[in-house]
Amino acid sequence: MKARILRKNRTQGQIPGTLEAPKGAFPTTVRVMAYDTESLEEEAVRSLDQIDALRQKFPMIWVDVAGLADTALIEDLGKRFGLHRLALEDVLHIPQRAKAEEYEESFYLVVRMLEREEGQATLDQLSLFWGENFVITFQERLGDSFGPVRDRLRKGARRVKMVYPDYLAYALLDAVIDGFFPLLEQYGDNLDTLEETVLDDASAPVMRSLHLTKRELHTLRLCLWPMREAVAKLRPGTPFVREEMQVYLRDCHDHIVQILDIIENYRERMSALNDLYLSSISNRLNEVMKVLTIIATIFMPLSFIASLYGMNFDTSHAMNMPELRSPYGYPAVLAFMFLLAGGMLFYFWRKGWMSRLQKK
Amino acid sequence: MKARILRKNRTQGQIPGTLEAPKGAFPTTVRVMAYDTESLEEEAVRSLDQIDALRQKFPMIWVDVAGLADTALIEDLGKRFGLHRLALEDVLHIPQRAKAEEYEESFYLVVRMLEREEGQATLDQLSLFWGENFVITFQERLGDSFGPVRDRLRKGARRVKMVYPDYLAYALLDAVIDGFFPLLEQYGDNLDTLEETVLDDASAPVMRSLHLTKRELHTLRLCLWPMREAVAKLRPGTPFVREEMQVYLRDCHDHIVQILDIIENYRERMSALNDLYLSSISNRLNEVMKVLTIIATIFMPLSFIASLYGMNFDTSHAMNMPELRSPYGYPAVLAFMFLLAGGMLFYFWRKGWMSRLQKK
Amino acid sequence: MKARILRKNRTQGQIPGTLEAPKGAFPTTVRVMAYDTESLEEEAVRSLDQIDALRQKFPMIWVDVAGLADTALIEDLGKRFGLHRLALEDVLHIPQRAKAEEYEESFYLVVRMLEREEGQATLDQLSLFWGENFVITFQERLGDSFGPVRDRLRKGARRVKMVYPDYLAYALLDAVIDGFFPLLEQYGDNLDTLEETVLDDASAPVMRSLHLTKRELHTLRLCLWPMREAVAKLRPGTPFVREEMQVYLRDCHDHIVQILDIIENYRERMSALNDLYLSSISNRLNEVMKVLTIIATIFMPLSFIASLYGMNFDTSHAMNMPELRSPYGYPAVLAFMFLLAGGMLFYFWRKGWMSRLQKK
Amino acid sequence: MKARILRKNRTQGQIPGTLEAPKGAFPTTVRVMAYDTESLEEEAVRSLDQIDALRQKFPMIWVDVAGLADTALIEDLGKRFGLHRLALEDVLHIPQRAKAEEYEESFYLVVRMLEREEGQATLDQLSLFWGENFVITFQERLGDSFGPVRDRLRKGARRVKMVYPDYLAYALLDAVIDGFFPLLEQYGDNLDTLEETVLDDASAPVMRSLHLTKRELHTLRLCLWPMREAVAKLRPGTPFVREEMQVYLRDCHDHIVQILDIIENYRERMSALNDLYLSSISNRLNEVMKVLTIIATIFMPLSFIASLYGMNFDTSHAMNMPELRSPYGYPAVLAFMFLLAGGMLFYFWRKGWMSRLQKK
Amino acid sequence: MKARILRKNRTQGQIPGTLEAPKGAFPTTVRVMAYDTESLEEEAVRSLDQIDALRQKFPMIWVDVAGLADTALIEDLGKRFGLHRLALEDVLHIPQRAKAEEYEESFYLVVRMLEREEGQATLDQLSLFWGENFVITFQERLGDSFGPVRDRLRKGARRVKMVYPDYLAYALLDAVIDGFFPLLEQYGDNLDTLEETVLDDASAPVMRSLHLTKRELHTLRLCLWPMREAVAKLRPGTPFVREEMQVYLRDCHDHIVQILDIIENYRERMSALNDLYLSSISNRLNEVMKVLTIIATIFMPLSFIASLYGMNFDTSHAMNMPELRSPYGYPAVLAFMFLLAGGMLFYFWRKGWMSRLQKK
Repeated sequence: MKARILRKNRTQGQIPGTLEAPKGAFPTTVRVMAYDTESLEEEAVRSLDQIDALRQKFPMIWVDVAGLADTALIEDLGKRFGLHRLALEDVLHIPQRAKAEEYEESFYLVVRMLEREEGQATLDQLSLFWGENFVITFQERLGDSFGPVRDRLRKGARRVKMVYPDYLAYALLDAVIDGFFPLLEQYGDNLDTLEETVLDDASAPVMRSLHLTKRELHTLRLCLWPMREAVAKLRPGTPFVREEMQVYLRDCHDHIVQILDIIENYRERMSALNDLYLSSISNRLNEVMKVLTIIATIFMPLSFIASLYGMNFDTSHAMNMPELRSPYGYPAVLAFMFLLAGGMLFYFWRKGWMSRLQKK
Repeated sequence: MKARILRKNRTQGQIPGTLEAPKGAFPTTVRVMAYDTESLEEEAVRSLDQIDALRQKFPMIWVDVAGLADTALIEDLGKRFGLHRLALEDVLHIPQRAKAEEYEESFYLVVRMLEREEGQATLDQLSLFWGENFVITFQERLGDSFGPVRDRLRKGARRVKMVYPDYLAYALLDAVIDGFFPLLEQYGDNLDTLEETVLDDASAPVMRSLHLTKRELHTLRLCLWPMREAVAKLRPGTPFVREEMQVYLRDCHDHIVQILDIIENYRERMSALNDLYLSSISNRLNEVMKVLTIIATIFMPLSFIASLYGMNFDTSHAMNMPELRSPYGYPAVLAFMFLLAGGMLFYFWRKGWMSRLQKK
Repeated sequence: MKARILRKNRTQGQIPGTLEAPKGAFPTTVRVMAYDTESLEEEAVRSLDQIDALRQKFPMIWVDVAGLADTALIEDLGKRFGLHRLALEDVLHIPQRAKAEEYEESFYLVVRMLEREEGQATLDQLSLFWGENFVITFQERLGDSFGPVRDRLRKGARRVKMVYPDYLAYALLDAVIDGFFPLLEQYGDNLDTLEETVLDDASAPVMRSLHLTKRELHTLRLCLWPMREAVAKLRPGTPFVREEMQVYLRDCHDHIVQILDIIENYRERMSALNDLYLSSISNRLNEVMKVLTIIATIFMPLSFIASLYGMNFDTSHAMNMPELRSPYGYPAVLAFMFLLAGGMLFYFWRKGWMSRLQKK
Repeated sequence: MKARILRKNRTQGQIPGTLEAPKGAFPTTVRVMAYDTESLEEEAVRSLDQIDALRQKFPMIWVDVAGLADTALIEDLGKRFGLHRLALEDVLHIPQRAKAEEYEESFYLVVRMLEREEGQATLDQLSLFWGENFVITFQERLGDSFGPVRDRLRKGARRVKMVYPDYLAYALLDAVIDGFFPLLEQYGDNLDTLEETVLDDASAPVMRSLHLTKRELHTLRLCLWPMREAVAKLRPGTPFVREEMQVYLRDCHDHIVQILDIIENYRERMSALNDLYLSSISNRLNEVMKVLTIIATIFMPLSFIASLYGMNFDTSHAMNMPELRSPYGYPAVLAFMFLLAGGMLFYFWRKGWMSRLQKK
Repeated sequence: MKARILRKNRTQGQIPGTLEAPKGAFPTTVRVMAYDTESLEEEAVRSLDQIDALRQKFPMIWVDVAGLADTALIEDLGKRFGLHRLALEDVLHIPQRAKAEEYEESFYLVVRMLEREEGQATLDQLSLFWGENFVITFQERLGDSFGPVRDRLRKGARRVKMVYPDYLAYALLDAVIDGFFPLLEQYGDNLDTLEETVLDDASAPVMRSLHLTKRELHTLRLCLWPMREAVAKLRPGTPFVREEMQVYLRDCHDHIVQILDIIENYRERMSALNDLYLSSISNRLNEVMKVLTIIATIFMPLSFIASLYGMNFDTSHAMNMPELRSPYGYPAVLAFMFLLAGGMLFYFWRKGWMSRLQKK
């Protein structure tokens, strides 16, 4: 998962309210759906005047802007729907901290959404405005997160509810939040695998993997935490949110809280895994050192004895190494060496050093 | 203990309010108890019309649905009792975060309950609805957690109180919460054993055990924490909760808080145990290295001396290794070696290295 | 210090309000003091009717029940004083989380008190009821924590104040809280000793001690934390607490907060001590390894040289080991060895390895 | 980044309200901009009377004081604009904790600003006063942080808004907050580099770098945390803050919160990096020890055997080392040694020790 | 810095309100300053009647009691000024948790002050009472913390303000808080030194120093944390605190918060330093082990070869060690050894082991 958490190379000292396209912005596409409970019209917009025409015809319109390169168009759109200049600036200043703000003519919500492209998930910014009779969404790229909602609209399912801007906004938000669960699932499976790996074989090189997962979860949490606050601000009593929405928004809020709970749980598991791994490494070191110590403890005395009898003292003197002249010197020394080595092994076995080496 | 914390393989972009049975759901069984203070009728329901008949006859009915495979039946039941569609969806979307929600015709509470099957505890989801004159429970499987409550109803004990739906809901909740204590006890015993093991023998392979316990406690906490909030919402003033229930619900809440306190205490103990274990491993390594160092320090100089007198310098020159020609060369060297080894041992003994090796 | 934190072997599915003596309960003794400002009567009660008689005679009575085996007596007592059944259940269900609860005819406070028996401190449960004209205390065993209060009553000191049940309850609570300070003092001394030990001699086996202290402090904190909340609930405006008590209860509350502060401070010190100990172990390992490395680095090359001149090449060939035939071969080799060893030592000394070994 | 967090060498027991220049204060320069929506006059002030003249002429004046050495001038300025003596003291007592305080004739805000000098960033203190028709800023040095704001004023852009003191104060504050982002970016890049370094080569000496970054982030957080509180206090309803400012100040506040979020995220990443590094070191030690153990385990037995046959037992006795007399003794021993070494290597290879050495 | 955090050897079961001098209390001295805006009289009091006389004459009196041995005098003083018995008990029960309490006739504030004696700082308890027309301070010893305030009174500076008891109390509190900054400065310098030491030479024995600083900061925090709360309670609206004091008390509060912030920052730095140190130790161990491994890896094979040619096989057999008989055997073996050693060194150099050893 990739996510920007900081807008880079920003121009310093800009006048607040300046509209500047983010670096590497995708080209802008505008897709519009206008509908009432009975009928629906869907268009890929080339000129914004098309939108005005559709607004005349239908009581409800959803303008979906994908790609943020065309600032002139975005500014124009903002003027037509009465979006606040500071809010429009936030649409382009990526990434924003998730937030919900009331303005006079619309409600503005910024959240992060998960967009997948070539198997790589990215945390994009979604800006969501809704007012009396419209919903406008600004996405960073032409993704398919809202495909199911679009399909439902086309099929007419729930269109009775979706003529209300707040319900459509909720449905979109719900789709965004739902999009996080597969990622969580993937992290969970990932963690299970890492855990099994460490429990099976302590020497497995899991740290890199663990570290990268940790880092991604930190970022995910950074992006989702303020989202919880933002969604919590959407409650009946807020302008542009009807009383009937309470039960749905509560549901959304519960899902975000659940996601955060699970992230927290993963973080705890990763921390436990880290502890487990560290103690495993230490245990392994102990094992290695025991092997070394056993070897050294057995062979050092033996080698010493062998060296001893390799000394060249003049054996013509009676006191000098009489063992060498003994007819049974060699067998006796060998026997002594066997006893010594055996005794050492017995000592280590009793200390429990041997058994654990065998086990692993 | 096993517990799902994330609904896997969920269908993305589903219309909110769709009823879909969870993967691997058990077949649905419906058991009904209808009663007044005087008499009680108990039935295994085959058709939901039986329920309507019983509702006519008795002022209070408890419908216990075990197994969530039959979504049609659950939907029908929901309609008959006026349960909200979103709530019914939550019944089937397993696992939910524990929560308490008021709806117009009923109160909805989701919690986790401990179900034991073949010695393996599982954290199942329990959905509890109650309204004017009914209590409905949805369990994941046909367990026996509510056996004692059922028995009490049959025996008529407290039936005077249990004709009130809120009291029956409380009694069921109380049974659920009580079910966690034996598990805690088991974890506590587990921890005691681990602690004694580490204190007795630092090299014991406890990490695996400790890790698994840690992980289960994390999961348990994840599931119980929101339960505290949910139960805290049940207070007089809430619809479908009578003023008289305050003292009972306070009791329930206190029990959950106590459980969470104990889990927290266990977590602290496990963290302390982790520290203890890590320092034990390090201590063991120290011991191992001391053995190695003592051996090396004693035998390396000795071997060197032996090798020295194994050199083949031409002893016909007066300066070359006159020791070898000395009649007491060998005994002198042996004596020197003894002194050296003894001195080393004395040095290590004074540094306190020997004593600690002996102790362990 | 010993403390139960979990009621073991509880009967599952009990009807709420069942009175069952805790496992291993001590036999019940009832001691009564009834008094007015002028006179006092003290009795060891055999029949509860004695109590009724005393209540007629005196405006204030203190019933102290020690040992919880006799549930019939406790139930009877509860009825005579109008104690709530759920509260009585809590008296017997040991251990309870500390709490303060108002009932209609009395105020109920559960806290933990420190009882010493044969040098071993135990955290017992104290249940305290007071109402219009009585105070009832339930202790787990026949301890002497309330001795000073009893003495004061007998001597008449402050009896003017103690005719008010809330003042007597406060006096008892104050005695309970005071009882924790000597234990804290003991832990503090303990920690000081451990700290000095580690600072003096890093290899001291303090982990066990540290771990046990840690564990006890965790338990103590677990038991005292809710006590703070409970006492905080006792403020004027609560029934059965007079306005004049404010200043006294504030004092009680401050003392508990102080105890918790000190426990927190101890925990921080223990965590710091843990860090210190771990780094000490690591330092020791470093020292041990340095000894080994110095020894090996000096003697391995020396041994190699000695072995070299122990080789048996045929010295009749001019190129084969001419050193052996040199008349000064041996002294030259010895000198070279001395230089080599000296050089090594100098190298280690300059690296600072020697100095630190000497210091310790 | 450098930052003072503590005023050093302060005079003890000073009378509150004494104005004393901070140690090493820069010489004082006063720059004034006075303007209305139409015209603007800019002056480097030599005498404060110039300011009075400008105030007569223009409805709005911005006095920018850079360098705090001239306490007399600052005191005089304070008197002319009615700044509270305690606030003036805070201007000179560097560093202050960021705070926002209302006084009768002005609002006082202290924050930290990032000033760059010769590539070295410093966290300077900025004191900001604004009242009915003036803004006064006190900076520690003659920096260029306010250049863009000054430019905007000169060009007339937004001068319509900037005639309001609260808007100018907001614009300055916004410039200050914007100044932190490049630093964050730099830390982020820094962390990325460190992370890659550790993941690539565990033995890299990153601790120093990591430690210094950690320390700077701690300091940055220390300085920014209270700034959040201070800015949160600036909300409509506060004197000298108009209702229209709400949306702008909310924006400022959001930016600070975002900065703090990112710092928190960096801290978590650094902590994860620390874990990764520690486990890397331990892994490396394991590898080193394995090399040693393999070498020792192979050569110690071999050397022992060689020493064995270097013993000088009198081979004229039949039992003494008959192998030496065997015509195939040497090849047999060599073969045995090869087998032994090969067996050892095979054993280590099967234990997986060899493969991991090769990999790295 | 020394500080008691627990009153030792307290008498158990004392009647609340008993006045008992703390262990090791210093003898009591009473110094009085009585003044109006015009004149001041200063006396060392021998009999408390002097005080009554002064109170008649002056509208404001400051009684400074240093040393708490004379409980009779303190009790008498308490009666004359109407101080509450429980408050007087707290004056003598050292140490108290810092707190602010209103009584009917006076306000009572307990804080900790830093008293220096022979270079050793001690955290003493300061009890501060003020009422309608008096301020009374109880210090543990005859220190000079209030010297500057006394001087200011004598010189008449600010006496206009100081005739108000709340202002004098504030001035004393301000002096107390100011007294902590030099200590913080000292800790900061200390930390800087430790940090530089560890960064320069990882093997420096800083743990002891670090641990002691940690411990003192823990204690300091324990004592100052409640002081923040206590001072926060002093706000206008409280009896005996005039509206005009708000701005001064806010200043005091800000200073304490700043101190706590800095302590928190130090704690974080120490924790980072701990991490740095631990990783340094581990790195050092790695270095030591590398030296050992390099030495062993080079000399073990060499020694083995030398031992090999030290074997005494009967070279009269053609197969037995023909190398020994070769005229170039010795030079060939030497050359092989050189190649082997060189190869090893090259291998270690390529693994990067050599370069890092050189660097350090």
